Amino acid sequence: MIIEMHPDSSQAQVKEVEHKARSLKLDVQMNLGTSKTIVALLGDNTGQIDTDLFAVLPGVQSVTRVMKPYKLASREFKQDDTTINIDGLTIGDNRIIVMAGPCAVENKEQLMEAARAIKRAGASVLRGGAFKPRTSPFSFQGLGKDGLELLVQAKDEVGLPIITEVLDTQHVNLVSEYADILQIGARNMQNFNLLTKVGKTLRPALLKRGLSASVTEWMAAADYLLAQNNTQVSLCERGIRTFETSSRFSLDICSIPVVKQNSHLPLIVDPSHAAGHYSLVSSIAKAAVAAGADGLIIEVHPNPKEAMSDGLQALTPSDFARLMEELKPIAASLGRTI
Amino acid sequence: MIIEMHPDSSQAQVKEVEHKARSLKLDVQMNLGTSKTIVALLGDNTGQIDTDLFAVLPGVQSVTRVMKPYKLASREFKQDDTTINIDGLTIGDNRIIVMAGPCAVENKEQLMEAARAIKRAGASVLRGGAFKPRTSPFSFQGLGKDGLELLVQAKDEVGLPIITEVLDTQHVNLVSEYADILQIGARNMQNFNLLTKVGKTLRPALLKRGLSASVTEWMAAADYLLAQNNTQVSLCERGIRTFETSSRFSLDICSIPVVKQNSHLPLIVDPSHAAGHYSLVSSIAKAAVAAGADGLIIEVHPNPKEAMSDGLQALTPSDFARLMEELKPIAASLGRTI
Amino acid sequence: MIIEMHPDSSQAQVKEVEHKARSLKLDVQMNLGTSKTIVALLGDNTGQIDTDLFAVLPGVQSVTRVMKPYKLASREFKQDDTTINIDGLTIGDNRIIVMAGPCAVENKEQLMEAARAIKRAGASVLRGGAFKPRTSPFSFQGLGKDGLELLVQAKDEVGLPIITEVLDTQHVNLVSEYADILQIGARNMQNFNLLTKVGKTLRPALLKRGLSASVTEWMAAADYLLAQNNTQVSLCERGIRTFETSSRFSLDICSIPVVKQNSHLPLIVDPSHAAGHYSLVSSIAKAAVAAGADGLIIEVHPNPKEAMSDGLQALTPSDFARLMEELKPIAASLGRTI
Amino acid sequence: MIIEMHPDSSQAQVKEVEHKARSLKLDVQMNLGTSKTIVALLGDNTGQIDTDLFAVLPGVQSVTRVMKPYKLASREFKQDDTTINIDGLTIGDNRIIVMAGPCAVENKEQLMEAARAIKRAGASVLRGGAFKPRTSPFSFQGLGKDGLELLVQAKDEVGLPIITEVLDTQHVNLVSEYADILQIGARNMQNFNLLTKVGKTLRPALLKRGLSASVTEWMAAADYLLAQNNTQVSLCERGIRTFETSSRFSLDICSIPVVKQNSHLPLIVDPSHAAGHYSLVSSIAKAAVAAGADGLIIEVHPNPKEAMSDGLQALTPSDFARLMEELKPIAASLGRTI
Repeated sequence: MIIEMHPDSSQAQVKEVEHKARSLKLDVQMNLGTSKTIVALLGDNTGQIDTDLFAVLPGVQSVTRVMKPYKLASREFKQDDTTINIDGLTIGDNRIIVMAGPCAVENKEQLMEAARAIKRAGASVLRGGAFKPRTSPFSFQGLGKDGLELLVQAKDEVGLPIITEVLDTQHVNLVSEYADILQIGARNMQNFNLLTKVGKTLRPALLKRGLSASVTEWMAAADYLLAQNNTQVSLCERGIRTFETSSRFSLDICSIPVVKQNSHLPLIVDPSHAAGHYSLVSSIAKAAVAAGADGLIIEVHPNPKEAMSDGLQALTPSDFARLMEELKPIAASLGRTI
Repeated sequence: MIIEMHPDSSQAQVKEVEHKARSLKLDVQMNLGTSKTIVALLGDNTGQIDTDLFAVLPGVQSVTRVMKPYKLASREFKQDDTTINIDGLTIGDNRIIVMAGPCAVENKEQLMEAARAIKRAGASVLRGGAFKPRTSPFSFQGLGKDGLELLVQAKDEVGLPIITEVLDTQHVNLVSEYADILQIGARNMQNFNLLTKVGKTLRPALLKRGLSASVTEWMAAADYLLAQNNTQVSLCERGIRTFETSSRFSLDICSIPVVKQNSHLPLIVDPSHAAGHYSLVSSIAKAAVAAGADGLIIEVHPNPKEAMSDGLQALTPSDFARLMEELKPIAASLGRTI
Repeated sequence: MIIEMHPDSSQAQVKEVEHKARSLKLDVQMNLGTSKTIVALLGDNTGQIDTDLFAVLPGVQSVTRVMKPYKLASREFKQDDTTINIDGLTIGDNRIIVMAGPCAVENKEQLMEAARAIKRAGASVLRGGAFKPRTSPFSFQGLGKDGLELLVQAKDEVGLPIITEVLDTQHVNLVSEYADILQIGARNMQNFNLLTKVGKTLRPALLKRGLSASVTEWMAAADYLLAQNNTQVSLCERGIRTFETSSRFSLDICSIPVVKQNSHLPLIVDPSHAAGHYSLVSSIAKAAVAAGADGLIIEVHPNPKEAMSDGLQALTPSDFARLMEELKPIAASLGRTI
Repeated sequence: MIIEMHPDSSQAQVKEVEHKARSLKLDVQMNLGTSKTIVALLGDNTGQIDTDLFAVLPGVQSVTRVMKPYKLASREFKQDDTTINIDGLTIGDNRIIVMAGPCAVENKEQLMEAARAIKRAGASVLRGGAFKPRTSPFSFQGLGKDGLELLVQAKDEVGLPIITEVLDTQHVNLVSEYADILQIGARNMQNFNLLTKVGKTLRPALLKRGLSASVTEWMAAADYLLAQNNTQVSLCERGIRTFETSSRFSLDICSIPVVKQNSHLPLIVDPSHAAGHYSLVSSIAKAAVAAGADGLIIEVHPNPKEAMSDGLQALTPSDFARLMEELKPIAASLGRTI
């Protein structure tokens, strides 16, 4: 941590900074320049120390953190790529994993049709929402426990593991009885009680990036899961909120190499929520694979025109099958399979 | 709702749109232009109908909602300003309400000192966090129930109602036993289960704007509270996330007149979290009052240098007292008191 | 254009809207709902009519434009893809065009070395800045005319057309004597005098997206070039400004399919400026090709460590050569060449 | 400047950093921690040295600038507030200066009516656009030189100095013959040739903040004007682009105290362009004054319904007169006049 003192700060103020640092067991190195005093604080844990503790001291002009504020999710903490094994399926390995299915589980017929279609096209995991976060209280909120049971029926029939969102601490136990992967949605990325409780289940989890979360905050949120000794954590980029409105969100394609450089966790990309419109999904999915994503999560609905939520961003089974075919040579060009 | 058809859409596609609309009990008016067909859908509930239901139909180029997607929070639903009464104190009335206190309850001495200081300076509500959402799992997470008990002790001593954040559905009952106002934090603005459960308590609630939530989404989130027949809802603008980093967030000053025009709910402004630095708080607080806010919520700590969280944005008791004096003539110039 | 009247607007106010519309030669269709009056204005030019002309009228609640505010750049105006021919090279065709070279022309040796390297690796156009926009007046501002002459020498030696930025109306004639493609930088996207003057040269132009410009504003800026009967216009996505700081800008990958759907103009992507760091460039370049870009513009410097500007985002010749190899199978998987 | 080396960087790489620093005449201080090497570079000009020069070196993990990248606009360079004198009027002094008038000069009658009205209401400077930057090439582009002549006629009649925008380097000499203050628009904030040429006129200038410019970039742009020894520079906050659409831009109210702390230049606020709608202008104007702005620039049109551009954000003369009355007690509460 680097502390810049005001040009007119006093020696006593510099001493106070030093004193505070030593009380936190940090090493202190002074740089007394001609016009400025710079204090460097060194130690193993400076990433976890709040910069405000120093910024609030009189005479301090700025405080800059050099170490990252996340730890367990970082490549510095763990160099090798994390892989997650689910009944023989491996996330984070050479094979790009495709998760697909409807936004919401609506009924048995819809889910089964979707499950069969995505299995046929080569997807590895079935997605489907049982508890839905909806912007308006007047919208369809999901089937709840009935939806979870339909998901398990679909899993049994097509033989694919299932991923579904857990919205609330009170549902963690329930959802973890059914789901192979617990999804934490973008709106809950900083719901720290939920993260902790999901972490404690020791079940595979997928942490979506908050729609205004920086990459750094996202990694720090992953630390909440990892701090419970749950190592089966994947990340999911799903677009950030910007001024642009021609797509629903702006997929942060740059975050893909940034995350792969700075974290050992597998990275899945959700082109459907970023796009908000089916006609954009294929291009974004291809881009994500080309940029180095370890997987995709894509909305597929047997009949988007009749979908109860987010039909506009769902692919039809035939569009999804074509996309899967188009992704193969791109994966191959990177030395990967799909 | 206005539907624009593609220039090359077929008559059958226009019929399908019309059919869908009628199935939703909407009136349909056709505008057959020389180059385009425009379909207007009319009805009382078009604000609550998902635009995707039409956007997904073949031949549709765009769908535009004319009615707002929120209802209960809107001035169209209720013309008169809502006021909230708490033991004789009224939020949303001529008097500007100031809520103040420390970010986190740390110990009895700190809280009592803060409570006495803000009471002396003229604040009307004591704030203090017992459950704290922290970006890193390695940071101080609040005193929990012990913090709530300290808040009640402070309330008893200084005679001010208390506001504190409820972070999780599992704490709603607990917190509502202690707090006069339940605060829903920015990170939970779209935690719809929490909103519903807080709504059901029928207790006064303060809904902070999410850091990347549009005004429209914020109002729709208020609908979740109001839909439980809880009418005692205040809104709180606390800054949005933008590219600018010289303040922690960018207080959306324009949202003040926008919300007052479009909603009947009282609007409180939090200059402390927007600023992120004590030296900016006074200017922003004055601006908020001048722009028409019904109240302020300000962080005050007896000794910011020793604060366990967010010390950098806390005012000292003497700075807070001076700000209260400076706000009085501004309130008076608007025909209000403080 | 769709005009929603206030619920309590008067008949006279509706008449005034109708009168204004007819004075602008628009067709008017009334939709008199039970609770609202909606007025639809129809005509060929509603995209070019300012919505404010109606929004300012008393009794009007909102005005929504249905037609896009750009015209000449739109697919509705011209269905077929535009291609641009430069000495046998075609932009916008099946072959993906790679433009490469240093940020700034620094001296003859640097430029020649870069030119030979990028030619060898398979690039089709040589880029290099002679006039540089620099954030600080104390930074290197480019070699000006001397830089242009070095570019022509390099062109003569390696046989590649050259692209360079024109910063100011006063330099348009000068730069167009030397350059094969005139680049309009992001900071000048809405410098409408410059656009008009570049348009008048009838030379191929590359229009970079402004760093906070919406896709719609970018297309409208292209209209300024096209309105001069200059049809040789390419677009360049180079990242937008968002809250995220782990890359210099956020490349808007969604804009690639959006632009290709809505415009007939070729689209080039600049991964270097979006990334801001050489280690991110390859991933983003691959993503852009996979998403459907018609070309790339990439910074390459023979010795980035000694670069006078933007060295951090420049690839070395060997990294660039490797990237070109890696792009080939991705292009092939899309049925394209590079 | 603080350079953090990779944990596994070599001694030779640290030496290369040191060598580069010494070649730039910087002092070097090493901090050899247990796990990391931190290199501090000290000198008077580190704010003007490009961080990329070091970030590009092998073994470097991050480079952090401690000094600000702007110099002449900073309070560190000049402690006392700058004031600007124009025919007896002082900008940056105790009196808050109000500039008002139409967006565009349309004709003599419109301008004279506006000029008389704003003079009567107490404004100090007449604004009016002769050269207009318009998003679409099909919109009204301003009267040009004829507009400038009308402005001078209005100045002669009502006795107020005039401010008008200069859009292009080729117009700088022309506009400076007529205008008392040269306005540089938001879209030109980083048109560095224009800044330099306006700087050279040594005439008072108003520099609007770019719609996606950070405060730091804005101050660096002011350096371009100041570097020409033109000290008569005012700044103008006019809103930044964010995801929020209920106002046209988001006025960055926090920037007011930030700029006043970090710069000696006077700060004017433009509530009209930020708001985009007349009904929001008064609230924002009051907020800006309360937050510490030195002046306002407000659009006023005698008949907004007939305005040729931006009528929706213009106040009527009577609304403007009422606002001026409402601002007086707020100014007084701050110990200022208006």
